[in-house]
Amino acid sequence: MNDNIEEVQGWLQSVKWNNGRLDLLDQRLLPETIEFLPLTTAQDVWEAIRHLKVRGAPAIGISAAFGVYLGIRDAEGDAAALLEEVRKQAEYLATSRPTAVNLFWALDRMKARAEELAGRQGLSPAGFKQALLDEALAIQAEDEETCRLIGEHALTLFQDGMGVLTHCNAGGLATARYGTALAPIYLAQERGISLKVFADETRPVLQGARLTAFELQQAGVDVTLICDNMAGMVMSKGWVQAVIVGTDRVAANGDVANKIGTYSVAVLAKAHGIPVYVACPLSTVDLSTPTGAEIPIEERPDEEITEGFGKRTAPQGVKVFNPAFDVTPNEYVSAIITEKGIVYPPFNVNLPKMFEA
Amino acid sequence: MNDNIEEVQGWLQSVKWNNGRLDLLDQRLLPETIEFLPLTTAQDVWEAIRHLKVRGAPAIGISAAFGVYLGIRDAEGDAAALLEEVRKQAEYLATSRPTAVNLFWALDRMKARAEELAGRQGLSPAGFKQALLDEALAIQAEDEETCRLIGEHALTLFQDGMGVLTHCNAGGLATARYGTALAPIYLAQERGISLKVFADETRPVLQGARLTAFELQQAGVDVTLICDNMAGMVMSKGWVQAVIVGTDRVAANGDVANKIGTYSVAVLAKAHGIPVYVACPLSTVDLSTPTGAEIPIEERPDEEITEGFGKRTAPQGVKVFNPAFDVTPNEYVSAIITEKGIVYPPFNVNLPKMFEA
Repeated sequence: MNDNIEEVQGWLQSVKWNNGRLDLLDQRLLPETIEFLPLTTAQDVWEAIRHLKVRGAPAIGISAAFGVYLGIRDAEGDAAALLEEVRKQAEYLATSRPTAVNLFWALDRMKARAEELAGRQGLSPAGFKQALLDEALAIQAEDEETCRLIGEHALTLFQDGMGVLTHCNAGGLATARYGTALAPIYLAQERGISLKVFADETRPVLQGARLTAFELQQAGVDVTLICDNMAGMVMSKGWVQAVIVGTDRVAANGDVANKIGTYSVAVLAKAHGIPVYVACPLSTVDLSTPTGAEIPIEERPDEEITEGFGKRTAPQGVKVFNPAFDVTPNEYVSAIITEKGIVYPPFNVNLPKMFEA
Repeated sequence: MNDNIEEVQGWLQSVKWNNGRLDLLDQRLLPETIEFLPLTTAQDVWEAIRHLKVRGAPAIGISAAFGVYLGIRDAEGDAAALLEEVRKQAEYLATSRPTAVNLFWALDRMKARAEELAGRQGLSPAGFKQALLDEALAIQAEDEETCRLIGEHALTLFQDGMGVLTHCNAGGLATARYGTALAPIYLAQERGISLKVFADETRPVLQGARLTAFELQQAGVDVTLICDNMAGMVMSKGWVQAVIVGTDRVAANGDVANKIGTYSVAVLAKAHGIPVYVACPLSTVDLSTPTGAEIPIEERPDEEITEGFGKRTAPQGVKVFNPAFDVTPNEYVSAIITEKGIVYPPFNVNLPKMFEA
């Protein structure tokens, strides 16, 4: 735990395996307080995901993978019993966020690994558990590499001096490192390519103000914070040449579910002739979801809007609509950038190809 | 002063002349606290306008008119000296908000009245002062009638069952009564015509959440509060058939300066085929301003965004862009609704006609 932000230098790893426990940066407390939560049980992880202490599709997946291990490390029994327990814990963890396909992906990978391990001759319970921990660590290491590759591909779309607008936080805090939408910005920074970033504050939970502005400022990137409703004006001034956002789920036709407000940003960008790029690991593309219409949109508590800052800012009892996500139809998406390369429309044709290679 | 909102029933008059002083509802404290500030000097009025205790173009104009009277009521000298003092006070009050053309309009009217009075034979200083107070009261009474007429015209554009989205607060609190953008909604309510209103919360100062949602809820109107970035999603669901907003200044070509975010709403509405109506008294139309490009856009303090809720929600030292207004080009404006009727494009032809009648 560290209450003084001045004492923390450089890159902040938001999910750390630390000698038998999962240390998780409580992102709800940023930017004022940097505090790592020591998680030791699957329930700890479930609650951290549910209550947005960890957020960002990849970071949620990594946390859930460690959560499966934490859920079975004290379990008794042989490999078959452990496999059963893995399935149970994965099913439990899957209930923490209904729209996070990366969560299901990570849990499925842990289950598949457990099934494979259960089929091995002579593997001890301790060996079974160690192999599951190694799998979670591998998911984390692979995510860092995935993000770096997304950044490399995305950076080919950017030029020195460009203005880039982003919404919510798809940054290093949301992943093992680099982030998805922010990965090209970090790589540009490393290479002396200058970008001017506009960060939407992203009501109601203010991930843009609290997280994106924070992590980009820490990295020395030129970032300007704006309210969500200023995006149109900033675009009309010619200050933005590209929009780049992350996503919680991409449907097979290229419809994109992301933090509420992404759709508005995409419509505004199109009206101003500005391309909209969506950056994500291929694991976020869900070919089993035909279109955005099939993506469930979670509604969150009224209080996030009416008293989101510890202070009531709307009248008692007022009716509120608070969707956590919206769906941006594929016609507003210029390209989807994955670790395997850039996917252009028609997405229903080109997205499946990415899974063939 | 009244801290308990439950004790206040019905219509809240935000600017009240009360036995020698101006009682002004401190709108910054809504919706939690209803508190009237007793203003007794021009400086009190200047500060109330400057610090957004009173806001909304007509309410600012009314307050400024009373401010002129407060500024001269204790002045010594003959009519010529009082006229000089009126001019001085008007010049001072004009510096409180640089974009509020209605402020200048009200001050000009007070000055014109003072000039006329100064030319009269045999008018005592006390008679001069009383006549100026009567002029301020007349401005207030005429504003109520103006708003009612705006509401009558606007209501012809609405049908029972429609969804209407509004941004910021152009309601009864912003005027003598009824409001401008909200006037048709109040008249609909009086006549049993059912409208479903969506109120953008309107960051950074949250006039939509604190004021619009509050006053519509008090009046029993079906109002749903959303974050600004949800407007696109709400439109895409087909829940909105019209956008109606107020304005701080309309240029001769129909470009509209209004609370930051109005431009984004207008672009989103156009993309969804939804008409955008701008409701304002004719005094807000400034034919001497050729286009929106000539309207100065005030930038406000960073802290409205970084710690607007008494709690820091963005990192220390982050760069911020905080324009108070934006300009919506006339191509996004379907009609401008004044007390004299509805003005359709081409505005550069049809707006001047409204002044001829």
